[in-house]
Amino acid sequence: MTILESASKIDQSVTLSGRVLAVRDHGKLKFIDLSDRSGLIQVVIKNGQELSQQDTVEISGVIKQRPTNLINDEIITGKVELVAENIIVLSHAVELPFDLSAKDLDLSIDTLLDHRTLTLRNPKQKDIFFVQSIIANTFSSTLETLGFTRIFTPKIVSTATEGGANLFKIDYFGKTAYLAQSPQFYKQIMAGVFDRVYEIGPVFRAEEHDTSRHVNEYTSLDLEMAYIKNFENILEIEEQFLANLIKELAKKAGNVFKDYGITLPKLPKKIPTISLKDAQILIKKEFGRDNTKEPDLEPQDEKDLSSYFLEKDGTDFVFVTHFPTSKRPFYAYPTQNDPTVTDSFDLIFRGIEVTTGGQRIHQYEQLMAKIKDRNLDPKNFESYLEAFRYGMPPHGGLAIGLERLTAKFLNLDNVKKATLFPRDLKRITP
Amino acid sequence: MTILESASKIDQSVTLSGRVLAVRDHGKLKFIDLSDRSGLIQVVIKNGQELSQQDTVEISGVIKQRPTNLINDEIITGKVELVAENIIVLSHAVELPFDLSAKDLDLSIDTLLDHRTLTLRNPKQKDIFFVQSIIANTFSSTLETLGFTRIFTPKIVSTATEGGANLFKIDYFGKTAYLAQSPQFYKQIMAGVFDRVYEIGPVFRAEEHDTSRHVNEYTSLDLEMAYIKNFENILEIEEQFLANLIKELAKKAGNVFKDYGITLPKLPKKIPTISLKDAQILIKKEFGRDNTKEPDLEPQDEKDLSSYFLEKDGTDFVFVTHFPTSKRPFYAYPTQNDPTVTDSFDLIFRGIEVTTGGQRIHQYEQLMAKIKDRNLDPKNFESYLEAFRYGMPPHGGLAIGLERLTAKFLNLDNVKKATLFPRDLKRITP
Repeated sequence: MTILESASKIDQSVTLSGRVLAVRDHGKLKFIDLSDRSGLIQVVIKNGQELSQQDTVEISGVIKQRPTNLINDEIITGKVELVAENIIVLSHAVELPFDLSAKDLDLSIDTLLDHRTLTLRNPKQKDIFFVQSIIANTFSSTLETLGFTRIFTPKIVSTATEGGANLFKIDYFGKTAYLAQSPQFYKQIMAGVFDRVYEIGPVFRAEEHDTSRHVNEYTSLDLEMAYIKNFENILEIEEQFLANLIKELAKKAGNVFKDYGITLPKLPKKIPTISLKDAQILIKKEFGRDNTKEPDLEPQDEKDLSSYFLEKDGTDFVFVTHFPTSKRPFYAYPTQNDPTVTDSFDLIFRGIEVTTGGQRIHQYEQLMAKIKDRNLDPKNFESYLEAFRYGMPPHGGLAIGLERLTAKFLNLDNVKKATLFPRDLKRITP
Repeated sequence: MTILESASKIDQSVTLSGRVLAVRDHGKLKFIDLSDRSGLIQVVIKNGQELSQQDTVEISGVIKQRPTNLINDEIITGKVELVAENIIVLSHAVELPFDLSAKDLDLSIDTLLDHRTLTLRNPKQKDIFFVQSIIANTFSSTLETLGFTRIFTPKIVSTATEGGANLFKIDYFGKTAYLAQSPQFYKQIMAGVFDRVYEIGPVFRAEEHDTSRHVNEYTSLDLEMAYIKNFENILEIEEQFLANLIKELAKKAGNVFKDYGITLPKLPKKIPTISLKDAQILIKKEFGRDNTKEPDLEPQDEKDLSSYFLEKDGTDFVFVTHFPTSKRPFYAYPTQNDPTVTDSFDLIFRGIEVTTGGQRIHQYEQLMAKIKDRNLDPKNFESYLEAFRYGMPPHGGLAIGLERLTAKFLNLDNVKKATLFPRDLKRITP
């Protein structure tokens, strides 16, 4: 029986298994907070048995209603307590290096990550990954409803997706292979098979960044869809996903957002859209920084745009569109009336880019010309090009960084805090 | 509008987008099979427009009922056809190297895999991965219902899970790292956090196998659960997953199994269970091969066991249990009344192992002793051991090979046929 199920069994005998989250010692009388996957319950221990934080136990006893003045409204099981009769210690924890029962762990990021196996047991830390699981599942469920098929593409690849650097090298039976930066080519190929596909999987970036925005391995929520009319069709899919997500988070994780003191973001019916060029003009006018010559947004630009649209439209989201051809990969679809830019977009959420997407070139000759323009070797793209030689429909897609999205939903100041076991320049353990 | 939606719009004008699967040319009158993600429809073309297999098109026209004698009962839209009025070619395919419209592609495995971007467009090939998506989604949905939380653990790791070989090496910013063989340690650590966790992700094995049973990168369906009473609790979860899966496949992929001429496997209420030792005695008695001294099952043993239990109990599944301690990883839980074996199991399905699982040691001292017994260096397992020092509940789990399971459901003779883009000794493209 789970703790949540036990809460309705007033005056009945139950056996619960779980972890000791906190111990409040009043001499012979002790109270512990016992937790399992369903929740938390106060246990009254009268026989003086010694228990420590983080022990795991099996406790038999009777569920009792708490006196009215001792009801804890903050938890769902706060009206009851378990009066212990028999306790079996399943495993004993040695003395903790810090108090895990504190509501907020006051630890440096290094300690937080070095002792990940322990710090993740703190309820507020754990909740980050509960929210993350809801994000991933809502991505799947939204797309399944819309006719997308889930795919699994290889992470060991022979060429760089975009002919670029930033790849981890692998020794593959004496040959050099790489870790995939993105499932880009494979998801495009598969959009030619299933029309609509999605993948949730790891991607690897050998970037020597040391920031609060980057990790070297992260989870990418990828989708690709065929027979689109224009790249706005892709924005619509992301809007549907976000609408479902905010609903799911409100339903399943309302208490987490309450604990974090954060309100769920407001999503307008249409997320505001602004071209990169217009965004830069706006930033110059409103914030006095002239980046109109830049080919991309700077981190501060993303922050300023977010605060502008939050004030103007009351929303935490803004799509920036039409990035320059020179800054986007060779397969980005040129905008019809201005081929110096592309039918591409980023989604900015609370001051940071969380999605990149766009329409892709689907005509073989046009794609081939782009590859040659960039002095890339078509031989490196043979199978990818094969898909186009045998007909590819108009298509496009997007990729969402799961950890970044999680971090921004909970206003965490570092994407590593939304990564179970982050990989960065210095960190490959735990 | 999708093709499936159009089928009910009799005598109405519709516009459909899709791929030309087949062309039947009767001079000025042509019939094509048009397909999209929802299905397939016959299109009548009267204006003599030339179309080739694999072109992608947008066709406007009127949906008409077919004459009774021309109804195609094999497809859901077989009672209607689209009479084309206007056709826009979205992309043109050059001449195909083989006929993709054939029901069964008669190609060597090398051709099948070399031209993957093309061969996957054949409906029967594509269906393999439709079935695979149902398997992965049913794993998720079953576990979510049972209170499991989805996790994402790193694929770049610093140590071998089991201190073993068969690891791909990565150059990680000048340091040596490895590709994870399994999320084993991480899922155990996380079972200490969420009680019940699962992960669907790639695993990497640098094994120099060249068989129909192995690929070097595959998708692992992993779960781990805490507060188990015994390892049979884990078998029960797998039984629930398989029961749901067979139901989902019957509901969503009935036509695929019909096309393949395969019946869905029968699942008894309890899958038969036999210890390795008893299985070997049985094999000796029934099949005359004496492997009673072997520490593991051989491929032929797995086949013989399957055919024995199919005949005896009418089931395609059998759990083999209690593998020797020497053949299982150091963390395998020793069986109480015979510590030379472990509380571990394999699931054999139609002659091949598709799952490995078992209970794990949860006591720090016992785990430490096992590490030392095997001459492993505890320093390599520091974070893993930290979880145990601070209390781990009794727990266990399993890992299912997604591609193997897919292959066996469809009776494919090679696991590579159930892998979108397989990686083997010779193959890292496409």
